[in-house]
Amino acid sequence: MPATPAWPPQSAPRLFVDAPLGQGVAVPLDGNPAHYLLSVMRVKEGDIVLLFDNRTGEWAAEAHDIRKRDVTLRVVQQTRPLEKVPDFWLCAAPIKKGRIDLVAEKACELGVARLQPVLTRRAVVDRLNLSRLQSHLVEAAEQCGRTALPELPEMVKLSGLLTNWPKGRHLFFADEQGGTPMAQALASRPGPAAFLIGPEGGFDDEERALIRAHPAAVAVSLGPRILRAETAAIAATSIWMALSGDWN
Amino acid sequence: MPATPAWPPQSAPRLFVDAPLGQGVAVPLDGNPAHYLLSVMRVKEGDIVLLFDNRTGEWAAEAHDIRKRDVTLRVVQQTRPLEKVPDFWLCAAPIKKGRIDLVAEKACELGVARLQPVLTRRAVVDRLNLSRLQSHLVEAAEQCGRTALPELPEMVKLSGLLTNWPKGRHLFFADEQGGTPMAQALASRPGPAAFLIGPEGGFDDEERALIRAHPAAVAVSLGPRILRAETAAIAATSIWMALSGDWN
Repeated sequence: MPATPAWPPQSAPRLFVDAPLGQGVAVPLDGNPAHYLLSVMRVKEGDIVLLFDNRTGEWAAEAHDIRKRDVTLRVVQQTRPLEKVPDFWLCAAPIKKGRIDLVAEKACELGVARLQPVLTRRAVVDRLNLSRLQSHLVEAAEQCGRTALPELPEMVKLSGLLTNWPKGRHLFFADEQGGTPMAQALASRPGPAAFLIGPEGGFDDEERALIRAHPAAVAVSLGPRILRAETAAIAATSIWMALSGDWN
Repeated sequence: MPATPAWPPQSAPRLFVDAPLGQGVAVPLDGNPAHYLLSVMRVKEGDIVLLFDNRTGEWAAEAHDIRKRDVTLRVVQQTRPLEKVPDFWLCAAPIKKGRIDLVAEKACELGVARLQPVLTRRAVVDRLNLSRLQSHLVEAAEQCGRTALPELPEMVKLSGLLTNWPKGRHLFFADEQGGTPMAQALASRPGPAAFLIGPEGGFDDEERALIRAHPAAVAVSLGPRILRAETAAIAATSIWMALSGDWN
């Protein structure tokens, strides 16, 4: 007897849709998503497409009413519940375009719950294209199988972030002037956490003093080499996920 | 009394030169390195430039005989000995251009001793521009303060890599079909190590069986989400450095 093919098929395209999904719901698509499904992925009538809505989890849908530039997806079955990612925030100063996009993509793949842009004094970039960052988060979520997107709040000033810091959330930050090795710092600090990373030029002295003085702050070290901002962000997130997140 | 300015100055440019350095050695530069120093960094007569040669460590040199397109650097003092990075290899299948460049840059920053390209069956890319990869390693080493470059041997086939695997070196690899959580796998396996990462499409079944059967192989898990090849490489390297490398 031949093996039953996997269902949903492993090759099924996976798309985020910004509308509540449920059994029998019809999702009409045009524009870029339709182009991706029809021209890039060559979806045919009746093919399965996986959808997630950041609200209810992941669903299998069938493609119907295919026309040149649009298609309707009819939801047939829930495939996964809404995920619960570990309670980890990445608070990052904006850095140059390609590199902040990379941080967004990797933060999503690695499993962060929130990407919080933070404005600091030495920021080379002081404006942030949130919708571009959001599209990187969506694309990464489609690719890595997440059913919930990381939250992406508006950029806040560092001082405001610190003033309104929630009780009980550890605030790890890489202090160039030294700190506890990251793995050691995590060992005694379970629970909600965040990693704060500065811009290319780092925090200035006053900012560093402000962070250090915060009761939730824990200065950590990421080794003897100088890491670029985005490398520190990706490395710290990986280490937190492996030791305190859901990789264990 | 004013504070003594730091020496060598923090803003000193840092360059790799492929020639043995030593007290009093004169290093004539033209082409790109000279352009970088003179036109980008605006180096003037007598300014300090840091040099490292991947052989003897890091040295401070003074800029002399500045002309339009060339300059001579005269070595005045050793600033750091040759570093010893942790004994960690990243064995990576070639992946698409931008992403393998990223792996090289991050591997160098994070501190790997060797980046070993490995040819696997599903590789989308089967040739590798080693000199382009090398230039990414050099640039990252200049930026992150390394005094030794990661080794970058020629690409080898997976079967050859496994056949000639050195005794006593753990071979961690991310098995999509499951493995020990990475942090847990490292806890009982100190010493020389490597992480093996496949191409975009992963290893095929036969390759996976070959790897699993190797006495040095340890299948690890990097969490519940699907990581891109380069994300897995960067995450695994970060975790190894934090737990078994020199970040502790």
